[in-house]
Amino acid sequence: MTKSPVSYELLHVDKHSGARRGIIHTPHGDWQTPMFMPVGTQATVKSMQPRELKEVGSQIILANTYHLWIRPGDELIKKAGGLHKFMDWDQAILTDSGGFQVFSLADTRSITEKGVTFKNNVDGSTMFLSPEVAMKIQNNLGPDIMMQLDEAVPYFETYDYIKESTERSARWALRALKAHKRPDEQALFGIVQGAGFKELRQNSAKDLASLDLPGYAIGGLSVGESKKEMNRVLDFTTPWLPEDKPRYLMGVAAPDSLFDSVARGIDMFDCVLPTRIARKGSLMTRFGRIVITNHKYKDDFSQLDPDLDDYASTHFTKAYLHHLFNTNELLGYNLASMHNLRYLLKLMADMRTAIENDQFLDFRAQVLEEYGYNKPNARLF
Amino acid sequence: MTKSPVSYELLHVDKHSGARRGIIHTPHGDWQTPMFMPVGTQATVKSMQPRELKEVGSQIILANTYHLWIRPGDELIKKAGGLHKFMDWDQAILTDSGGFQVFSLADTRSITEKGVTFKNNVDGSTMFLSPEVAMKIQNNLGPDIMMQLDEAVPYFETYDYIKESTERSARWALRALKAHKRPDEQALFGIVQGAGFKELRQNSAKDLASLDLPGYAIGGLSVGESKKEMNRVLDFTTPWLPEDKPRYLMGVAAPDSLFDSVARGIDMFDCVLPTRIARKGSLMTRFGRIVITNHKYKDDFSQLDPDLDDYASTHFTKAYLHHLFNTNELLGYNLASMHNLRYLLKLMADMRTAIENDQFLDFRAQVLEEYGYNKPNARLF
Ligand SMILES: [Zn+2]
Ligand SMILES: [Zn+2]
Repeated sequence: MTKSPVSYELLHVDKHSGARRGIIHTPHGDWQTPMFMPVGTQATVKSMQPRELKEVGSQIILANTYHLWIRPGDELIKKAGGLHKFMDWDQAILTDSGGFQVFSLADTRSITEKGVTFKNNVDGSTMFLSPEVAMKIQNNLGPDIMMQLDEAVPYFETYDYIKESTERSARWALRALKAHKRPDEQALFGIVQGAGFKELRQNSAKDLASLDLPGYAIGGLSVGESKKEMNRVLDFTTPWLPEDKPRYLMGVAAPDSLFDSVARGIDMFDCVLPTRIARKGSLMTRFGRIVITNHKYKDDFSQLDPDLDDYASTHFTKAYLHHLFNTNELLGYNLASMHNLRYLLKLMADMRTAIENDQFLDFRAQVLEEYGYNKPNARLF
Repeated sequence: MTKSPVSYELLHVDKHSGARRGIIHTPHGDWQTPMFMPVGTQATVKSMQPRELKEVGSQIILANTYHLWIRPGDELIKKAGGLHKFMDWDQAILTDSGGFQVFSLADTRSITEKGVTFKNNVDGSTMFLSPEVAMKIQNNLGPDIMMQLDEAVPYFETYDYIKESTERSARWALRALKAHKRPDEQALFGIVQGAGFKELRQNSAKDLASLDLPGYAIGGLSVGESKKEMNRVLDFTTPWLPEDKPRYLMGVAAPDSLFDSVARGIDMFDCVLPTRIARKGSLMTRFGRIVITNHKYKDDFSQLDPDLDDYASTHFTKAYLHHLFNTNELLGYNLASMHNLRYLLKLMADMRTAIENDQFLDFRAQVLEEYGYNKPNARLF
């Protein structure tokens, strides 16, 4: 068997929690965990240049297979020399399988053992996605890490449906592995399903672990269930995941959830939240979220964020950003996105230091206190 | 009399044309002429960071008094420490008087000797702009160079109307000078009017020259008249302008017009064209304008512009920019704007070198030939 192009190195586990400090080695460089991955849906993190992504500390970004398959097409990106070259990003990239978007954006989908048939949301044409098609697309796109196709099921479904779907996803993982054409250059991660059912999560984890994949995601969370419920599932799922492989929780960016998940041994996260709320004028700061479009910032000439070191946070005032949003100026989206990504990436860097020093839980308490998670009616995510 | 805070130093005149190579000294640094000024209407050059403006070679930018007066207000910008500080631009700034926008954007305006009454285009409230008000606003904004209020008249008006308006503008220049509260820090430029009437242009130039202002604009051009007509007016107007003061032609960015005007002794230009067409996907290149949204660029993996040295032109392909525009991604506006500004600012830098070497006319012929100005049906601006 070939050595995986992506491997995990565990450096340290926090003495008082399950928080792990590690390094992931990929063909496009090493990156540190725990880590947050900015989302570049259409081969661009909205409003951000690749060099700006590096400035704010991005070491890996995520792109969406579904969107790139439709526009500009995976064959075109292959012809461009792959996604890294196409978008001028020379560090690691992870792509999802396209499944989540098929289930959330597309119309009239029907799922069988073979795959999913659906109408795409751009031109309405009928398309077919299977474990093999998802691999073909991702082999063309060329990211360092690819995700298997799975079914995105609602959290609150019947036990019988979740069981059927979870077992099918495990079979799809095996088909994906068999269809993988570039095992020396790209790593395939599996996705553990099972919603809130302990037995199903554990069977799913066991099935996938038997494939000896280089990494595992925990799917079907952060889809509307409570934070307490998510933590309950993580509590009984992560212990079943191999210790020597990275663990990825999809769709999470709220500071309290990041802390809760890292404490339970999660290494990787992604979410559109920081850039999406940025474009609405919401800024993540040490003392909680501020909405810069609020008129009270019109003459607040204090630095955008004195705690952060990025270009946006250090060069502009709250009043200026208020003005940019008030006049619908494009620069506002760029500066707010840069700020929010820096906030999250610095938070992850600080978490890594705290883990190294066995102070993760203290650090969590301090950050969440300042952020306002302990205040009643605090503005949370 | 106080020494002007802005002064012009003539370095060299091209041996075969009227093209001038100079330096303008301001409280926010020296800048080289001939020069193009990017337009930052609302205290931001659309989609561009201040540091990016420097990267592409901007040495001075223009901001619009009318827009800033309405939002966020000149008093607020004064409170911020002035426009330079508000928008984080530490090099020179020029503001217009607001007159052009009052005449082009506002409703139900009425003009008297005293000033202009109009309804603004943002909230419809009634406002009054006079030479004194325009100075008060610009003294609050704090640019290095301020423009006097003048009337923006259509090019093809009767001799009698143009005469009346031009003489009133000259009286307004004197009123502006008297109302100027910060003569040690900011320079007031006058605007020569007179449409296509030689006698009126010369009287206007003489009236303004008698005020010994630190610089002069030629107004009322590039408003729909032909290029030939504009050159005819420049031919008889510039000789009447003092040689030791900078000359500014407003609203020009098309390469052929820049060359024609520099050849006639113009030093400064501004126009929204490069950034406005950029946001529609039009790129200015050595071999003419290309429209990147054209489907033929979908798999053109050549460098965006091999002649240019800016981040956008050197790091991305035509195919990637096509994709960004095709998917309405914000990064496309930024990269295209950066490219077009670099094109124009490098063109001006190359003109300056050509003037120094007395090769301005040869350089013009070569650039316009390559650009396609000699081809029938060439895609021009
Ligand atoms: Zn406001
Ligand atoms: Zn196309």
